[in-house]
Amino acid sequence: VLLGEPVVLYRRSDGTPVALEDRCCHRRAPLSRGRVEGDDLRCGYHGFLYEPSGAVVWVPGTDRIPSSARVRSYPVVEKHGYVWIWMGDAALADEGEVPDFHWNTAPGWTSGGALLPMKCNYMLVVDNLLDLSHPPFLHANSIGSADDTNPELTWERGERFVRGVRIARDIAPTPRLRKMGVKSNIDTDKVMTYLPAGNVVLEITQTIRAPGDGPGAYHSFILNAMTPETESSCHYFWRNCRDYEIGNAELTKFLCGATATAFEEDKAMLEHQQAAIDLDPEAPEVNIKGDLGSIQARRLLQSLLSAEAPPARAAA
Amino acid sequence: VLLGEPVVLYRRSDGTPVALEDRCCHRRAPLSRGRVEGDDLRCGYHGFLYEPSGAVVWVPGTDRIPSSARVRSYPVVEKHGYVWIWMGDAALADEGEVPDFHWNTAPGWTSGGALLPMKCNYMLVVDNLLDLSHPPFLHANSIGSADDTNPELTWERGERFVRGVRIARDIAPTPRLRKMGVKSNIDTDKVMTYLPAGNVVLEITQTIRAPGDGPGAYHSFILNAMTPETESSCHYFWRNCRDYEIGNAELTKFLCGATATAFEEDKAMLEHQQAAIDLDPEAPEVNIKGDLGSIQARRLLQSLLSAEAPPARAAA
Amino acid sequence: VLLGEPVVLYRRSDGTPVALEDRCCHRRAPLSRGRVEGDDLRCGYHGFLYEPSGAVVWVPGTDRIPSSARVRSYPVVEKHGYVWIWMGDAALADEGEVPDFHWNTAPGWTSGGALLPMKCNYMLVVDNLLDLSHPPFLHANSIGSADDTNPELTWERGERFVRGVRIARDIAPTPRLRKMGVKSNIDTDKVMTYLPAGNVVLEITQTIRAPGDGPGAYHSFILNAMTPETESSCHYFWRNCRDYEIGNAELTKFLCGATATAFEEDKAMLEHQQAAIDLDPEAPEVNIKGDLGSIQARRLLQSLLSAEAPPARAAA
Repeated sequence: VLLGEPVVLYRRSDGTPVALEDRCCHRRAPLSRGRVEGDDLRCGYHGFLYEPSGAVVWVPGTDRIPSSARVRSYPVVEKHGYVWIWMGDAALADEGEVPDFHWNTAPGWTSGGALLPMKCNYMLVVDNLLDLSHPPFLHANSIGSADDTNPELTWERGERFVRGVRIARDIAPTPRLRKMGVKSNIDTDKVMTYLPAGNVVLEITQTIRAPGDGPGAYHSFILNAMTPETESSCHYFWRNCRDYEIGNAELTKFLCGATATAFEEDKAMLEHQQAAIDLDPEAPEVNIKGDLGSIQARRLLQSLLSAEAPPARAAA
Repeated sequence: VLLGEPVVLYRRSDGTPVALEDRCCHRRAPLSRGRVEGDDLRCGYHGFLYEPSGAVVWVPGTDRIPSSARVRSYPVVEKHGYVWIWMGDAALADEGEVPDFHWNTAPGWTSGGALLPMKCNYMLVVDNLLDLSHPPFLHANSIGSADDTNPELTWERGERFVRGVRIARDIAPTPRLRKMGVKSNIDTDKVMTYLPAGNVVLEITQTIRAPGDGPGAYHSFILNAMTPETESSCHYFWRNCRDYEIGNAELTKFLCGATATAFEEDKAMLEHQQAAIDLDPEAPEVNIKGDLGSIQARRLLQSLLSAEAPPARAAA
Repeated sequence: VLLGEPVVLYRRSDGTPVALEDRCCHRRAPLSRGRVEGDDLRCGYHGFLYEPSGAVVWVPGTDRIPSSARVRSYPVVEKHGYVWIWMGDAALADEGEVPDFHWNTAPGWTSGGALLPMKCNYMLVVDNLLDLSHPPFLHANSIGSADDTNPELTWERGERFVRGVRIARDIAPTPRLRKMGVKSNIDTDKVMTYLPAGNVVLEITQTIRAPGDGPGAYHSFILNAMTPETESSCHYFWRNCRDYEIGNAELTKFLCGATATAFEEDKAMLEHQQAAIDLDPEAPEVNIKGDLGSIQARRLLQSLLSAEAPPARAAA
């Protein structure tokens, strides 16, 4: 279920992805319980056969196929190891809006990641990713450094992005780095970029200040794609990409495990937060300086949504 | 829970069944947590004692029993190994409307079956049972024969039934028949009868065309009684009755196991179908030729419901 | 969750209890997932630090704390081994309204008990505790004596209590007493006191009539505190206090086990009762003589609620 709509994904025989409404036009059986036949998808209940366009090309017992026999087909494009879907008006689909996630598949890079089902609104994950004040508290035992909070943060808002930059010099290494053998202080640069439709790119550069204490600089991108399922749940796809020691599978396992641990800490807190919101949706909130990024992201999203909405009819 | 109402069933000392509202008139404790005393049922909370009529004949601490101390008693009749309940106005209960399910207990017949709890509206099961196009897809590995679909189907609508007849000649045996050793083609006659209040009788005759390849003809009735629990769940009682090799308990076990397997396949699909309906109750449906039977069944049911409804008051 | 509101309880460094709204004023994370620091409570998400007054005294990244940064603090008082909370207007909190539960901690007494989460409205537990007709049925195998029902009950209603007294002479011992070796009949005095806000004190005196058959008189108080969680659930705190053989830990274990068994029987019935109420909230009920106590308790509660409610605005 994406944005409240049931969707089935499959691949044609040439491998290109197809996304159809996951609800047979006949009696609403989910097509995801059917089977792929060549480029088409057959319903597992009465055998209706669907083309990638969503049109039905076979029904049982008759050659007369009703013209209304079709389901919605969603534009999809596969890029950087992701399948991107456009849930709006197909005529407005624009491949140019697919975020640049090239680090996930580019030569010289390696990556790992997972899909985390979240029982919270996807914007709570965006808030979390654009915030640098919570790691010392929520991630005290994983990726949080007490020195690495938000004071030096600067924010920029573009037409279709919000970006924050955090430069930290000579700060304590995180518990994760300490586990990797780093004892001396580090310099950290973080660039956080929010892109509409639920994506956040984190670029993190950690430079070891004592040259003999590690491989120099750790450079990575955390790619975060949060796809809404319902108002209070989302599919959280994340990838951890790096350009050092790319052949070291053990290191990949260690780093992804550490990221997974931190994201599980986020997941627990965000799901409790959503439960508290559901208990009293009208309870007020207080904003502080550290919320600047997430507030700008929500404003950008709201302005894009308003621009998309049809104009209200003027009163006579 | 039947038709949204809590019901408790028990037997008098002479074995006749009683159906009462399963909610004590005092403080609404379920009577099904009490105990039977002779012909009566005693509440397990404060000991209120109920006669089969629903009247209270004992309360604790006083001999003065309030006249309003009673629960609803539902007309029931036991017939053909089933207990039938009338949930409407007791004055309108008509034993003549009990479906003819005599094959379940008649001499010369043997039967087996089960109760399947279904998380779907009972009419989805009716649709399923009156449809001959889905077995080759949903039951490809159990009772579906690719040849045995719906082209030759004829439908008849009576005042209180809808009946379909399917005559198939020289078709491939089903996977189940092949497991029983049948290699040659078969002739199949199917008579499907929908009766209001959620019952479908299937009469199936399968004749082996190669005389040496089996016992001749397999004749069976599948009796299906779907009792609504809520709008989106029902109790599905089914029995598989046959008049051959009636002393063969191994065969009974094999046949009922095969039917149960097929009905579990239906259950999984119908519950997904209900979930898809619940996700968007307004999503449209498309009808094809094979839906003729279920459409007629729904129309018959609707016309009976309309006839039962009190006439709307005319405007002055 | 108390009365529908999220509450977090912790202790200051001197041990005194604090109750705060369990929802950070920043982004609504539950404070119960944070940690206590001295007298204060720190949110586990972004580190907001709360004083016992509910005021925020530290936020990340800035010294400017918004004046609206606070959560609700509830008056609490610890007495007799309980923490009592006032959920209403703090200015109206009155320690004098805390029920007298001194037997729980008084010298010469010993006690045991538990917290039972109940999926039912708290007043169903009050009804149950003020009723002496159900033990012979619901507790036939634990604390119910067939002779010990409600005929001799007298009720008194005060301004802030409802009290019932039951004097039973020469009745059969309960199954529990029989397990303790009592063979002869007993005299039983029961005093049941309902106090508003969900508390019931039961004083029970059981005197063995045959002097050689036991220690004489068993005297105990059952203290029952039902705290509403939602409209259909509550936290049920109970304690069993006695003034005989107070050093006998085995006896404490046996008596609390027996009480727990009986209360589990109540819990099962009351939760079924709540489910039946939820299925049809409008279903009628019938009152009998034995309901006098619970009806008076509900009337007292209703009159107190009406007195508290703001007067309706008079029509012009």
